Amino acid sequence: MDFNLRKAQKKDSVAILKLIEELAVFEKEPDAVELTKEDIERDGFGENPLFTCFVAEVNKQVQGMALCYFRYSTWKGKTVHLEDLIIRESYRNKGLGKALYKRVMEFALENKVKRVEWVVLDWNINAVNFYKNSGATVFEEWNTVQFSDDAIRQFLQ
Amino acid sequence: MDFNLRKAQKKDSVAILKLIEELAVFEKEPDAVELTKEDIERDGFGENPLFTCFVAEVNKQVQGMALCYFRYSTWKGKTVHLEDLIIRESYRNKGLGKALYKRVMEFALENKVKRVEWVVLDWNINAVNFYKNSGATVFEEWNTVQFSDDAIRQFLQ
Repeated sequence: MDFNLRKAQKKDSVAILKLIEELAVFEKEPDAVELTKEDIERDGFGENPLFTCFVAEVNKQVQGMALCYFRYSTWKGKTVHLEDLIIRESYRNKGLGKALYKRVMEFALENKVKRVEWVVLDWNINAVNFYKNSGATVFEEWNTVQFSDDAIRQFLQ
Repeated sequence: MDFNLRKAQKKDSVAILKLIEELAVFEKEPDAVELTKEDIERDGFGENPLFTCFVAEVNKQVQGMALCYFRYSTWKGKTVHLEDLIIRESYRNKGLGKALYKRVMEFALENKVKRVEWVVLDWNINAVNFYKNSGATVFEEWNTVQFSDDAIRQFLQ
């Protein structure tokens, strides 16, 4: 399948949001997305972008995206975090995902970071195997902790 | 024990690096720290700081720190990531850790984020229990993936 990779632009905000919502359904959290089109426009394409996004287009329609940003490791210094890599279901297994994945890795090297990091659900075997086969390492002993603003307010009372 | 919390300054860079090295030993990765004092000075206290750090002092000596920075969630928007919370071993269980933890959570609310996130080693039971008791949620199904620059270069060849 022919496709085209490019950096996302403000006009892609709706397409990006739709992909984010599709991933939330896949991850069994359909109601978790609080982000709006306006948030994406401001946070991704305003004066101080909080993330960098690449999109994959088929016939000029966005069918996949990779969204990343910089983090900071106290071992390695500046790193890239891959937040989301999403391909619309009917366009999977056609090379879009691998191309976006490669693009993020190129972006990381262009920015001279020593590491790219992300998280994966342990039951998402296809993703786990793809990452391992590419040369990345999955750390099962590192667990993610999250503290919501409401729970923090309660804790600080 | 009396202690004092404050935002870290450039002069704390050596003390910060020593705490980072102490944590790496505890996490069984004594050689993982590539960061230098100069990196910390530039990345934390230069023109465009990549992180925010709080320190806990006892008798004007830094004995603990919490280092955090902003991330971006495609579900929640801007979030705070707690990268390290480190108390020198002989100063543990005296309230410094809890005070720094609270300070980071206050910082998160001051910045109106919807979530604070971090990772914990599953065998670090004391930390896991402390986080859970405070109201945070530990997600065991989310695993961390890391791709080093050397491995990325090999993958892209």
